[in-house]
Amino acid sequence: MAPPPAANNGGAGGFSRVAIVGVGLIGGSLGMALRGRRLAQTIVGIGRDAARLETARGLGAVDEIATDPAAGVDGADLVVLATPIRQIIADLATLSPLLSPGALVTDVGSTKAEIARAGDAALPRGTFVAGHPMAGSERSGVEAANPELFIEAVWALTPTAATNPDALDRVKALAQGVGARVLVLDPHEHDRAVAVTSHLPHVLAYALSALAADTARNSPHLYDLAAGSFASATRVAASPPDLWQDVALTNRAALAEVLRAYRADLDTVLAALDAGNADVLRDRFQAGFDAKRG
Amino acid sequence: MAPPPAANNGGAGGFSRVAIVGVGLIGGSLGMALRGRRLAQTIVGIGRDAARLETARGLGAVDEIATDPAAGVDGADLVVLATPIRQIIADLATLSPLLSPGALVTDVGSTKAEIARAGDAALPRGTFVAGHPMAGSERSGVEAANPELFIEAVWALTPTAATNPDALDRVKALAQGVGARVLVLDPHEHDRAVAVTSHLPHVLAYALSALAADTARNSPHLYDLAAGSFASATRVAASPPDLWQDVALTNRAALAEVLRAYRADLDTVLAALDAGNADVLRDRFQAGFDAKRG
Repeated sequence: MAPPPAANNGGAGGFSRVAIVGVGLIGGSLGMALRGRRLAQTIVGIGRDAARLETARGLGAVDEIATDPAAGVDGADLVVLATPIRQIIADLATLSPLLSPGALVTDVGSTKAEIARAGDAALPRGTFVAGHPMAGSERSGVEAANPELFIEAVWALTPTAATNPDALDRVKALAQGVGARVLVLDPHEHDRAVAVTSHLPHVLAYALSALAADTARNSPHLYDLAAGSFASATRVAASPPDLWQDVALTNRAALAEVLRAYRADLDTVLAALDAGNADVLRDRFQAGFDAKRG
Repeated sequence: MAPPPAANNGGAGGFSRVAIVGVGLIGGSLGMALRGRRLAQTIVGIGRDAARLETARGLGAVDEIATDPAAGVDGADLVVLATPIRQIIADLATLSPLLSPGALVTDVGSTKAEIARAGDAALPRGTFVAGHPMAGSERSGVEAANPELFIEAVWALTPTAATNPDALDRVKALAQGVGARVLVLDPHEHDRAVAVTSHLPHVLAYALSALAADTARNSPHLYDLAAGSFASATRVAASPPDLWQDVALTNRAALAEVLRAYRADLDTVLAALDAGNADVLRDRFQAGFDAKRG
Protein backbone atom coordinates (compact mmCIF):
# COMPACT_ATOMS: atom_id res chain seq x y z
CA MET A 1 0.00 0.00 0.00
CA ALA A 2 1.36 3.40 -0.97
CA PRO A 3 2.20 5.79 1.82
CA PRO A 4 -0.10 8.76 2.18
CA PRO A 5 1.07 11.89 0.37
CA ALA A 6 3.38 14.09 2.33
CA ALA A 7 1.12 16.86 3.50
CA ASN A 8 1.54 19.71 5.92
CA ASN A 9 -1.19 18.28 8.06
CA GLY A 10 0.58 16.52 10.85
CA GLY A 11 1.27 17.52 14.41
CA ALA A 12 -0.78 19.99 16.32
CA GLY A 13 -3.26 21.91 14.25
CA GLY A 14 -3.35 20.04 10.96
CA PHE A 15 -6.42 18.30 9.59
CA SER A 16 -6.43 15.18 7.49
CA ARG A 17 -9.97 15.17 6.07
CA VAL A 18 -11.79 18.47 5.61
CA ALA A 19 -15.43 18.46 4.55
CA ILE A 20 -16.69 21.68 2.96
CA VAL A 21 -20.46 22.06 2.88
CA GLY A 22 -21.33 24.45 0.05
CA VAL A 23 -18.63 24.73 -2.59
CA GLY A 24 -19.30 28.23 -3.93
CA LEU A 25 -17.05 31.29 -4.03
CA ILE A 26 -15.77 30.96 -0.46
CA GLY A 27 -16.00 27.19 -0.01
CA GLY A 28 -14.44 26.58 -3.41
CA SER A 29 -11.65 29.07 -2.83
CA LEU A 30 -10.89 27.48 0.53
CA GLY A 31 -10.77 24.03 -1.04
CA MET A 32 -8.40 25.25 -3.74
CA ALA A 33 -6.17 26.98 -1.18
CA LEU A 34 -6.03 23.96 1.15
CA ARG A 35 -5.27 21.63 -1.75
CA GLY A 36 -2.70 23.93 -3.30
CA ARG A 37 -0.86 24.33 -0.01
CA ARG A 38 -1.34 20.68 0.99
CA LEU A 39 -2.89 21.76 4.26
CA ALA A 40 -5.10 18.66 4.40
CA GLN A 41 -4.88 15.19 2.95
CA THR A 42 -8.36 15.11 1.48
CA ILE A 43 -11.00 17.74 0.78
CA VAL A 44 -14.54 16.51 0.31
CA GLY A 45 -17.17 18.82 -1.12
CA ILE A 46 -20.74 18.37 0.09
CA GLY A 47 -23.76 19.79 -1.68
CA ARG A 48 -27.17 19.01 -3.07
CA ASP A 49 -26.34 19.41 -6.76
CA ALA A 50 -24.07 16.67 -8.10
CA ALA A 51 -23.39 18.54 -11.33
CA ARG A 52 -22.19 21.62 -9.48
CA LEU A 53 -20.02 19.47 -7.24
CA GLU A 54 -18.49 17.89 -10.33
CA THR A 55 -17.75 21.38 -11.63
CA ALA A 56 -16.03 22.14 -8.34
CA ARG A 57 -13.97 18.98 -8.55
CA GLY A 58 -13.09 19.76 -12.16
CA LEU A 59 -11.86 23.19 -11.08
CA GLY A 60 -9.64 21.65 -8.43
CA ALA A 61 -11.63 22.85 -5.44
CA VAL A 62 -12.22 19.40 -3.90
CA ASP A 63 -10.83 15.86 -4.09
CA GLU A 64 -14.08 14.03 -3.43
CA ILE A 65 -17.74 14.94 -3.61
CA ALA A 66 -20.83 13.86 -1.70
CA THR A 67 -24.49 14.71 -2.06
CA ASP A 68 -25.22 12.68 1.08
CA PRO A 69 -24.12 14.76 4.08
CA ALA A 70 -23.69 11.67 6.29
CA ALA A 71 -21.23 10.13 3.86
CA GLY A 72 -19.53 13.47 3.31
CA VAL A 73 -18.75 14.24 6.94
CA ASP A 74 -17.88 10.65 7.86
CA GLY A 75 -14.28 10.61 9.02
CA ALA A 76 -13.81 14.35 8.64
CA ASP A 77 -11.83 15.99 11.44
CA LEU A 78 -12.96 19.43 10.25
CA VAL A 79 -16.30 20.44 8.74
CA VAL A 80 -16.51 23.88 7.15
CA LEU A 81 -20.01 25.27 6.65
CA ALA A 82 -19.92 27.58 3.62
CA THR A 83 -23.56 27.87 2.60
CA PRO A 84 -25.88 30.88 3.07
CA ILE A 85 -26.45 31.71 6.72
CA ARG A 86 -29.86 30.15 7.21
CA GLN A 87 -28.54 26.90 5.75
CA ILE A 88 -25.53 27.05 8.07
CA ILE A 89 -27.85 27.32 11.06
CA ALA A 90 -29.98 24.44 9.78
CA ASP A 91 -26.94 22.27 9.03
CA LEU A 92 -25.48 22.75 12.50
CA ALA A 93 -28.44 20.80 13.88
CA THR A 94 -28.75 18.18 11.15
CA LEU A 95 -25.04 17.42 10.83
CA SER A 96 -24.31 17.24 14.56
CA PRO A 97 -25.32 13.57 15.04
CA LEU A 98 -23.41 12.58 11.89
CA LEU A 99 -20.00 13.95 12.91
CA SER A 100 -17.05 11.72 13.73
CA PRO A 101 -15.82 11.90 17.34
CA GLY A 102 -13.53 14.85 17.93
CA ALA A 103 -14.50 16.62 14.72
CA LEU A 104 -14.32 20.39 14.78
CA VAL A 105 -16.81 22.58 12.95
CA THR A 106 -16.33 26.10 11.63
CA ASP A 107 -18.28 28.30 9.25
CA VAL A 108 -17.74 31.29 6.98
CA GLY A 109 -21.04 33.16 7.45
CA SER A 110 -21.15 36.96 7.33
CA THR A 111 -22.94 37.31 10.69
CA LYS A 112 -21.70 35.61 13.81
CA ALA A 113 -23.82 35.99 16.94
CA GLU A 114 -26.78 33.84 15.83
CA ILE A 115 -24.52 31.26 14.24
CA ALA A 116 -22.24 31.04 17.29
CA ARG A 117 -25.28 30.55 19.52
CA ALA A 118 -26.72 27.88 17.21
CA GLY A 119 -23.37 26.08 16.96
CA ASP A 120 -22.83 25.99 20.71
CA ALA A 121 -26.35 24.66 21.16
CA ALA A 122 -26.15 21.98 18.48
CA LEU A 123 -22.62 20.61 18.67
CA PRO A 124 -20.55 18.84 21.35
CA ARG A 125 -19.29 21.45 23.78
CA GLY A 126 -16.29 23.42 22.59
CA THR A 127 -16.08 22.00 19.07
CA PHE A 128 -17.57 24.94 17.16
CA VAL A 129 -15.44 27.87 16.08
CA ALA A 130 -17.51 30.49 14.27
CA GLY A 131 -15.60 32.37 11.57
CA HIS A 132 -15.91 34.97 8.84
CA PRO A 133 -13.28 35.43 6.14
CA MET A 134 -13.67 38.98 4.80
CA ALA A 135 -13.04 37.89 1.27
CA GLY A 136 -16.33 37.95 -0.56
CA SER A 137 -17.17 39.88 -3.68
CA GLU A 138 -20.26 40.61 -5.70
CA ARG A 139 -19.47 37.47 -7.66
CA SER A 140 -20.63 34.06 -6.56
CA GLY A 141 -20.24 30.41 -7.45
CA VAL A 142 -17.24 28.14 -7.65
CA GLU A 143 -16.48 29.56 -11.10
CA ALA A 144 -15.38 32.74 -9.31
CA ALA A 145 -13.28 30.86 -6.75
CA ASN A 146 -9.55 31.28 -6.56
CA PRO A 147 -6.97 29.87 -4.16
CA GLU A 148 -5.46 33.29 -3.40
CA LEU A 149 -8.75 34.80 -2.23
CA PHE A 150 -7.71 34.77 1.42
CA ILE A 151 -4.20 36.15 1.08
CA GLU A 152 -3.94 39.20 3.35
CA ALA A 153 -7.69 39.08 3.95
CA VAL A 154 -8.94 39.43 7.51
CA TRP A 155 -10.47 36.20 8.79
CA ALA A 156 -12.52 36.90 11.88
CA LEU A 157 -12.95 34.11 14.44
CA THR A 158 -15.55 34.70 17.11
CA PRO A 159 -15.23 32.19 19.95
CA THR A 160 -17.72 32.11 22.80
CA ALA A 161 -17.22 31.10 26.42
CA ALA A 162 -17.91 27.54 25.30
CA THR A 163 -15.25 27.36 22.60
CA ASN A 164 -12.33 25.03 23.30
CA PRO A 165 -9.09 27.08 23.10
CA ASP A 166 -7.33 24.26 21.25
CA ALA A 167 -10.14 24.15 18.68
CA LEU A 168 -9.76 27.89 18.21
CA ASP A 169 -6.00 27.51 17.71
CA ARG A 170 -6.43 24.79 15.11
CA VAL A 171 -8.96 26.77 13.05
CA LYS A 172 -6.77 29.84 13.43
CA ALA A 173 -3.80 27.90 12.02
CA LEU A 174 -5.95 26.81 9.07
CA ALA A 175 -6.96 30.37 8.25
CA GLN A 176 -3.39 31.58 8.57
CA GLY A 177 -2.29 28.65 6.45
CA VAL A 178 -4.27 29.96 3.47
CA GLY A 179 -2.78 33.42 3.91
CA ALA A 180 -5.38 35.21 6.01
CA ARG A 181 -4.80 37.59 8.91
CA VAL A 182 -6.82 36.21 11.82
CA LEU A 183 -8.75 38.58 14.06
CA VAL A 184 -10.27 37.05 17.19
CA LEU A 185 -13.17 39.01 18.65
CA ASP A 186 -16.55 38.72 20.31
CA PRO A 187 -19.36 37.71 17.92
CA HIS A 188 -21.56 40.65 18.91
CA GLU A 189 -18.70 43.10 18.42
CA HIS A 190 -18.11 41.52 15.02
CA ASP A 191 -21.74 41.92 14.05
CA ARG A 192 -21.92 45.55 15.12
CA ALA A 193 -18.78 46.39 13.16
CA VAL A 194 -19.73 44.62 9.93
CA ALA A 195 -23.19 46.18 10.12
CA VAL A 196 -21.34 49.43 9.30
CA THR A 197 -18.55 48.16 7.08
CA SER A 198 -20.38 45.55 5.04
CA HIS A 199 -24.10 45.17 5.64
CA LEU A 200 -25.06 48.85 5.43
CA PRO A 201 -22.98 49.31 2.23
CA HIS A 202 -24.99 46.51 0.63
CA VAL A 203 -28.31 48.04 1.73
CA LEU A 204 -27.20 51.41 0.34
CA ALA A 205 -26.11 49.93 -2.98
CA TYR A 206 -29.32 47.99 -3.50
CA ALA A 207 -31.38 51.10 -2.68
CA LEU A 208 -29.42 53.38 -5.02
CA SER A 209 -29.56 50.86 -7.84
CA ALA A 210 -33.34 50.55 -7.43
CA LEU A 211 -33.83 54.32 -7.20
CA ALA A 212 -31.88 54.87 -10.39
CA ALA A 213 -34.04 52.36 -12.25
CA ASP A 214 -37.19 54.05 -10.98
CA THR A 215 -35.93 57.50 -11.93
CA ALA A 216 -34.73 56.36 -15.34
CA ARG A 217 -38.33 55.68 -16.38
CA ASN A 218 -38.80 59.45 -16.66
CA SER A 219 -35.18 60.35 -17.38
CA PRO A 220 -34.09 58.58 -20.56
CA HIS A 221 -30.48 59.77 -20.37
CA LEU A 222 -29.97 58.84 -16.74
CA TYR A 223 -27.64 55.91 -17.27
CA ASP A 224 -25.69 57.83 -19.91
CA LEU A 225 -24.90 60.28 -17.14
CA ALA A 226 -23.68 57.64 -14.71
CA ALA A 227 -19.96 57.88 -14.14
CA GLY A 228 -17.51 56.37 -11.71
CA SER A 229 -19.22 57.36 -8.48
CA PHE A 230 -22.42 55.57 -9.50
CA ALA A 231 -20.53 52.46 -10.53
CA SER A 232 -18.70 52.33 -7.20
CA ALA A 233 -21.81 53.07 -5.18
CA THR A 234 -23.85 50.30 -6.82
CA ARG A 235 -21.13 47.67 -7.38
CA VAL A 236 -22.31 45.29 -4.69
CA ALA A 237 -25.95 45.54 -5.79
CA ALA A 238 -24.91 42.69 -8.08
CA SER A 239 -24.58 40.49 -4.97
CA PRO A 240 -27.13 37.66 -4.54
CA PRO A 241 -30.23 39.12 -2.82
CA ASP A 242 -31.02 35.87 -1.01
CA LEU A 243 -27.62 35.83 0.68
CA TRP A 244 -28.03 39.41 1.86
CA GLN A 245 -31.58 38.83 3.02
CA ASP A 246 -30.08 36.17 5.31
CA VAL A 247 -27.38 38.56 6.49
CA ALA A 248 -29.91 41.28 7.25
CA LEU A 249 -32.24 38.89 9.08
CA THR A 250 -29.47 37.45 11.24
CA ASN A 251 -28.07 40.87 12.13
CA ARG A 252 -31.33 42.78 12.38
CA ALA A 253 -30.75 44.73 15.55
CA ALA A 254 -27.24 45.93 14.75
CA LEU A 255 -28.09 46.75 11.15
CA ALA A 256 -31.25 48.63 12.16
CA GLU A 257 -29.22 50.65 14.67
CA VAL A 258 -26.61 51.76 12.15
CA LEU A 259 -29.24 52.38 9.50
CA ARG A 260 -31.04 54.70 11.96
CA ALA A 261 -27.84 56.60 12.61
CA TYR A 262 -27.14 56.81 8.91
CA ARG A 263 -30.64 58.04 8.15
CA ALA A 264 -30.24 60.73 10.79
CA ASP A 265 -27.16 61.99 8.96
CA LEU A 266 -29.07 62.03 5.67
CA ASP A 267 -31.85 63.96 7.41
CA THR A 268 -29.29 66.57 8.43
CA VAL A 269 -28.11 66.87 4.83
CA LEU A 270 -31.67 67.04 3.56
CA ALA A 271 -32.60 69.82 5.98
CA ALA A 272 -29.49 71.71 4.92
CA LEU A 273 -30.43 71.34 1.26
CA ASP A 274 -33.95 72.57 1.93
CA ALA A 275 -32.63 75.56 3.88
CA GLY A 276 -29.66 76.26 1.62
CA ASN A 277 -27.41 75.90 4.64
CA ALA A 278 -23.95 75.85 3.10
CA ASP A 279 -22.14 75.47 6.43
CA VAL A 280 -23.96 72.28 7.39
CA LEU A 281 -23.39 70.74 3.97
CA ARG A 282 -19.72 71.57 4.19
CA ASP A 283 -19.53 70.18 7.72
CA ARG A 284 -21.08 66.83 6.79
CA PHE A 285 -18.99 66.43 3.65
CA GLN A 286 -15.85 67.44 5.52
CA ALA A 287 -16.55 64.85 8.24
CA GLY A 288 -16.74 62.11 5.65
CA PHE A 289 -13.66 63.40 3.86
CA ASP A 290 -11.62 63.60 7.05
CA ALA A 291 -12.62 60.06 8.04
CA LYS A 292 -11.68 58.76 4.61
CA ARG A 293 -8.35 60.49 4.66
CA GLY A 294 -7.63 59.85 8.31
CA MET B 1 9.69 84.23 -38.78
CA ALA B 2 8.72 80.56 -38.51
CA PRO B 3 5.33 79.55 -39.82
CA PRO B 4 2.78 78.63 -37.18
CA PRO B 5 2.65 74.95 -36.38
CA ALA B 6 0.31 72.93 -38.56
CA ALA B 7 -2.64 72.39 -36.30
CA ASN B 8 -6.02 70.82 -36.79
CA ASN B 9 -7.72 74.06 -35.97
CA GLY B 10 -8.78 75.51 -39.29
CA GLY B 11 -12.11 75.59 -41.03
CA ALA B 12 -15.44 75.45 -39.32
CA GLY B 13 -15.30 74.49 -35.68
CA GLY B 14 -11.64 74.80 -34.80
CA PHE B 15 -10.27 77.24 -32.25
CA SER B 16 -6.93 78.97 -32.43
CA ARG B 17 -6.52 80.29 -28.89
CA VAL B 18 -8.22 78.48 -26.03
CA ALA B 19 -8.14 79.98 -22.54
CA ILE B 20 -8.72 77.54 -19.69
CA VAL B 21 -9.69 79.15 -16.39
CA GLY B 22 -8.73 76.75 -13.62
CA VAL B 23 -6.08 74.22 -14.61
CA GLY B 24 -6.92 71.35 -12.25
CA LEU B 25 -7.89 67.77 -13.00
CA ILE B 26 -10.43 68.61 -15.71
CA GLY B 27 -8.95 71.83 -17.06
CA GLY B 28 -5.47 70.34 -17.09
CA SER B 29 -6.59 67.14 -18.79
CA LEU B 30 -8.42 69.17 -21.42
CA GLY B 31 -5.34 71.27 -22.05
CA MET B 32 -3.18 68.16 -22.42
CA ALA B 33 -5.70 66.55 -24.77
CA LEU B 34 -6.07 69.65 -26.95
CA ARG B 35 -2.30 70.08 -27.15
CA GLY B 36 -1.63 66.41 -27.79
CA ARG B 37 -4.16 66.29 -30.60
CA ARG B 38 -3.22 69.77 -31.91
CA LEU B 39 -6.83 70.88 -31.69
CA ALA B 40 -5.84 74.49 -31.00
CA GLN B 41 -2.79 76.59 -31.78
CA THR B 42 -2.32 77.92 -28.27
CA ILE B 43 -3.66 76.96 -24.86
CA VAL B 44 -3.43 79.57 -22.15
CA GLY B 45 -3.98 78.61 -18.54
CA ILE B 46 -5.54 81.21 -16.26
CA GLY B 47 -5.45 81.05 -12.48
CA ARG B 48 -4.61 82.93 -9.34
CA ASP B 49 -1.57 80.92 -8.30
CA ALA B 50 1.44 81.44 -10.58
CA ALA B 51 3.31 78.49 -9.07
CA ARG B 52 0.46 76.10 -9.78
CA LEU B 53 0.16 77.46 -13.31
CA GLU B 54 3.88 76.84 -13.81
CA THR B 55 3.35 73.27 -12.64
CA ALA B 56 0.57 72.92 -15.20
CA ARG B 57 2.81 74.26 -17.94
CA GLY B 58 5.60 71.95 -16.83
CA LEU B 59 3.23 69.00 -17.11
CA GLY B 60 2.29 69.99 -20.64
CA ALA B 61 -1.25 71.11 -19.85
CA VAL B 62 -0.88 74.64 -21.26
CA ASP B 63 1.40 76.65 -23.55
CA GLU B 64 1.07 79.99 -21.79
CA ILE B 65 -0.05 81.09 -18.35
CA ALA B 66 -1.77 84.19 -17.00
CA THR B 67 -2.67 85.29 -13.51
CA ASP B 68 -4.40 88.36 -14.97
CA PRO B 69 -7.72 87.20 -16.44
CA ALA B 70 -7.89 90.16 -18.84
CA ALA B 71 -4.54 89.25 -20.37
CA GLY B 72 -5.43 85.57 -20.39
CA VAL B 73 -8.68 85.83 -22.32
CA ASP B 74 -7.40 88.52 -24.69
CA GLY B 75 -7.57 87.11 -28.20
CA ALA B 76 -9.06 83.79 -27.11
CA ASP B 77 -11.81 82.47 -29.37
CA LEU B 78 -12.81 79.94 -26.73
CA VAL B 79 -12.81 80.34 -22.95
CA VAL B 80 -13.30 77.19 -20.87
CA LEU B 81 -14.34 77.71 -17.26
CA ALA B 82 -12.99 74.81 -15.21
CA THR B 83 -13.07 76.09 -11.65
CA PRO B 84 -15.48 75.08 -8.86
CA ILE B 85 -19.08 76.00 -9.68
CA ARG B 86 -19.43 79.15 -7.61
CA GLN B 87 -16.27 80.50 -9.21
CA ILE B 88 -17.62 79.65 -12.67
CA ILE B 89 -20.74 81.68 -11.94
CA ALA B 90 -18.69 84.59 -10.64
CA ASP B 91 -16.29 84.46 -13.59
CA LEU B 92 -19.09 84.56 -16.13
CA ALA B 93 -19.90 88.07 -14.96
CA THR B 94 -16.36 89.33 -14.45
CA LEU B 95 -14.89 87.90 -17.66
CA SER B 96 -17.74 88.99 -19.93
CA PRO B 97 -16.49 92.54 -20.58
CA LEU B 98 -12.95 91.24 -21.17
CA LEU B 99 -13.75 88.77 -23.95
CA SER B 100 -12.66 89.29 -27.54
CA PRO B 101 -15.47 89.79 -30.09
CA GLY B 102 -16.99 86.51 -31.18
CA ALA B 103 -15.43 84.49 -28.36
CA LEU B 104 -17.38 81.45 -27.21
CA VAL B 105 -17.51 80.38 -23.59
CA THR B 106 -18.10 76.92 -22.17
CA ASP B 107 -17.68 75.36 -18.75
CA VAL B 108 -17.20 71.95 -17.15
CA GLY B 109 -19.27 72.33 -13.98
CA SER B 110 -21.13 69.37 -12.50
CA THR B 111 -24.48 71.19 -12.34
CA LYS B 112 -25.93 72.97 -15.31
CA ALA B 113 -29.20 74.85 -14.78
CA GLU B 114 -27.82 77.66 -12.59
CA ILE B 115 -24.70 77.98 -14.68
CA ALA B 116 -26.63 78.05 -17.97
CA ARG B 117 -28.89 80.78 -16.59
CA ALA B 118 -25.91 82.80 -15.35
CA GLY B 119 -24.05 82.41 -18.64
CA ASP B 120 -27.00 83.49 -20.74
CA ALA B 121 -27.46 86.50 -18.49
CA ALA B 122 -23.82 87.58 -18.43
CA LEU B 123 -22.52 86.90 -21.93
CA PRO B 124 -23.37 88.16 -25.44
CA ARG B 125 -26.47 86.32 -26.60
CA GLY B 126 -25.84 82.80 -27.87
CA THR B 127 -22.15 82.60 -27.03
CA PHE B 128 -22.39 80.39 -23.94
CA VAL B 129 -22.53 76.60 -24.20
CA ALA B 130 -22.80 74.97 -20.79
CA GLY B 131 -21.11 71.60 -20.53
CA HIS B 132 -20.22 68.76 -18.20
CA PRO B 133 -17.65 66.11 -19.05
CA MET B 134 -18.44 63.05 -16.91
CA ALA B 135 -14.81 62.35 -16.29
CA GLY B 136 -14.02 63.36 -12.76
CA SER B 137 -12.59 61.20 -10.04
CA GLU B 138 -11.94 61.52 -6.34
CA ARG B 139 -8.53 62.89 -7.25
CA SER B 140 -7.99 66.55 -7.96
CA GLY B 141 -5.32 68.93 -9.19
CA VAL B 142 -3.33 69.09 -12.39
CA GLU B 143 -1.01 66.40 -11.04
CA ALA B 144 -3.88 63.95 -11.58
CA ALA B 145 -4.61 65.23 -15.09
CA ASN B 146 -4.16 63.04 -18.13
CA PRO B 147 -4.87 63.66 -21.81
CA GLU B 148 -6.91 60.47 -22.17
CA LEU B 149 -9.37 61.37 -19.43
CA PHE B 150 -12.18 62.13 -21.88
CA ILE B 151 -11.84 59.13 -24.17
CA GLU B 152 -15.22 57.38 -24.28
CA ALA B 153 -16.48 59.62 -21.47
CA VAL B 154 -19.89 61.22 -21.85
CA TRP B 155 -19.63 65.00 -22.26
CA ALA B 156 -23.01 66.58 -21.65
CA LEU B 157 -23.81 69.86 -23.38
CA THR B 158 -26.89 71.67 -22.18
CA PRO B 159 -27.90 74.47 -24.53
CA THR B 160 -30.76 76.80 -23.74
CA ALA B 161 -33.16 78.59 -26.07
CA ALA B 162 -30.56 81.36 -26.26
CA THR B 163 -27.64 79.19 -27.36
CA ASN B 164 -26.39 79.76 -30.91
CA PRO B 165 -26.55 76.42 -32.81
CA ASP B 166 -23.20 77.09 -34.44
CA ALA B 167 -21.63 77.72 -31.04
CA LEU B 168 -23.07 74.42 -29.85
CA ASP B 169 -21.64 72.62 -32.88
CA ARG B 170 -18.18 74.07 -32.36
CA VAL B 171 -18.04 73.10 -28.68
CA LYS B 172 -19.44 69.69 -29.57
CA ALA B 173 -16.64 69.19 -32.10
CA LEU B 174 -14.10 70.15 -29.44
CA ALA B 175 -15.46 67.57 -26.99
CA GLN B 176 -15.56 64.89 -29.67
CA GLY B 177 -12.06 65.89 -30.70
CA VAL B 178 -10.68 64.86 -27.31
CA GLY B 179 -12.49 61.53 -27.53
CA ALA B 180 -15.71 62.19 -25.63
CA ARG B 181 -19.21 61.04 -26.54
CA VAL B 182 -21.37 64.17 -26.60
CA LEU B 183 -24.86 64.08 -25.13
CA VAL B 184 -27.01 67.17 -25.76
CA LEU B 185 -29.85 67.61 -23.29
CA ASP B 186 -31.83 70.15 -21.30
CA PRO B 187 -29.92 71.57 -18.31
CA HIS B 188 -32.72 70.71 -15.87
CA GLU B 189 -32.96 67.16 -17.17
CA HIS B 190 -29.19 66.91 -16.74
CA ASP B 191 -29.37 68.12 -13.18
CA ARG B 192 -32.15 65.72 -12.21
CA ALA B 193 -30.25 62.77 -13.69
CA VAL B 194 -26.88 63.53 -12.12
CA ALA B 195 -28.58 64.13 -8.78
CA VAL B 196 -29.16 60.36 -8.83
CA THR B 197 -26.07 59.16 -10.63
CA SER B 198 -23.42 61.42 -9.14
CA HIS B 199 -24.55 63.85 -6.44
CA LEU B 200 -26.43 61.36 -4.28
CA PRO B 201 -23.56 58.82 -4.46
CA HIS B 202 -21.25 61.49 -3.07
CA VAL B 203 -23.65 62.36 -0.25
CA LEU B 204 -23.98 58.65 0.60
CA ALA B 205 -20.22 58.10 0.60
CA TYR B 206 -19.49 61.09 2.83
CA ALA B 207 -22.21 59.98 5.27
CA LEU B 208 -21.00 56.38 5.44
CA SER B 209 -17.40 57.44 5.90
CA ALA B 210 -18.40 59.75 8.75
CA LEU B 211 -20.62 57.13 10.39
CA ALA B 212 -17.82 54.58 10.32
CA ALA B 213 -15.47 56.99 12.03
CA ASP B 214 -18.07 57.74 14.70
CA THR B 215 -18.76 54.05 15.26
CA ALA B 216 -15.08 53.13 15.35
CA ARG B 217 -14.65 55.14 18.55
CA ASN B 218 -16.44 52.31 20.37
CA SER B 219 -15.52 49.50 18.00
CA PRO B 220 -11.73 49.22 17.85
CA HIS B 221 -11.72 46.50 15.16
CA LEU B 222 -14.15 48.25 12.85
CA TYR B 223 -11.72 49.18 10.13
CA ASP B 224 -10.07 45.75 10.31
CA LEU B 225 -13.47 44.39 9.31
CA ALA B 226 -13.88 46.70 6.32
CA ALA B 227 -13.66 44.80 3.07
CA GLY B 228 -14.38 45.60 -0.54
CA SER B 229 -17.94 46.83 -0.15
CA PHE B 230 -16.88 49.52 2.32
CA ALA B 231 -14.02 50.63 0.10
CA SER B 232 -16.33 50.98 -2.91
CA ALA B 233 -19.06 52.69 -0.92
CA THR B 234 -16.72 55.32 0.51
CA ARG B 235 -14.32 55.81 -2.42
CA VAL B 236 -15.62 59.22 -3.43
CA ALA B 237 -15.62 60.49 0.16
CA ALA B 238 -12.03 61.40 -0.72
CA SER B 239 -13.42 64.06 -3.09
CA PRO B 240 -12.90 67.73 -2.15
CA PRO B 241 -15.74 68.77 0.19
CA ASP B 242 -15.76 72.36 -1.07
CA LEU B 243 -16.41 71.25 -4.63
CA TRP B 244 -19.30 69.05 -3.55
CA GLN B 245 -20.73 71.73 -1.32
CA ASP B 246 -20.97 73.85 -4.48
CA VAL B 247 -22.58 71.02 -6.39
CA ALA B 248 -25.15 70.43 -3.68
CA LEU B 249 -25.95 74.12 -3.36
CA THR B 250 -26.42 74.60 -7.09
CA ASN B 251 -28.61 71.50 -7.45
CA ARG B 252 -30.49 71.75 -4.17
CA ALA B 253 -34.01 71.03 -5.34
CA ALA B 254 -33.19 68.02 -7.49
CA LEU B 255 -30.80 66.55 -4.94
CA ALA B 256 -33.28 67.04 -2.10
CA GLU B 257 -35.96 65.30 -4.16
CA VAL B 258 -33.86 62.20 -4.85
CA LEU B 259 -32.54 62.15 -1.30
CA ARG B 260 -36.15 62.11 -0.07
CA ALA B 261 -36.98 59.20 -2.35
CA TYR B 262 -33.84 57.38 -1.26
CA ARG B 263 -34.60 57.94 2.40
CA ALA B 264 -38.09 56.55 1.87
CA ASP B 265 -36.53 53.34 0.55
CA LEU B 266 -34.22 53.15 3.57
CA ASP B 267 -37.26 53.65 5.79
CA THR B 268 -38.89 50.65 4.13
CA VAL B 269 -35.80 48.56 4.81
CA LEU B 270 -35.61 49.81 8.39
CA ALA B 271 -39.23 48.95 9.08
CA ALA B 272 -38.66 45.49 7.60
CA LEU B 273 -35.62 44.98 9.84
CA ASP B 274 -37.57 46.05 12.91
CA ALA B 275 -40.44 43.72 12.02
CA GLY B 276 -38.27 40.87 10.77
CA ASN B 277 -40.13 41.04 7.47
CA ALA B 278 -38.06 38.76 5.23
CA ASP B 279 -40.24 39.31 2.16
CA VAL B 280 -39.81 43.08 2.15
CA LEU B 281 -36.06 42.81 2.62
CA ARG B 282 -35.85 40.35 -0.25
CA ASP B 283 -38.05 42.57 -2.43
CA ARG B 284 -35.90 45.67 -1.89
CA PHE B 285 -32.62 43.82 -2.41
CA GLN B 286 -34.01 42.08 -5.48
CA ALA B 287 -35.12 45.42 -6.97
CA GLY B 288 -31.59 46.76 -6.65
CA PHE B 289 -30.09 43.57 -8.00
CA ASP B 290 -32.41 43.48 -11.01
CA ALA B 291 -31.65 47.11 -11.83
CA LYS B 292 -27.93 46.46 -11.58
CA ARG B 293 -28.12 43.44 -13.82
CA GLY B 294 -30.68 44.90 -16.21
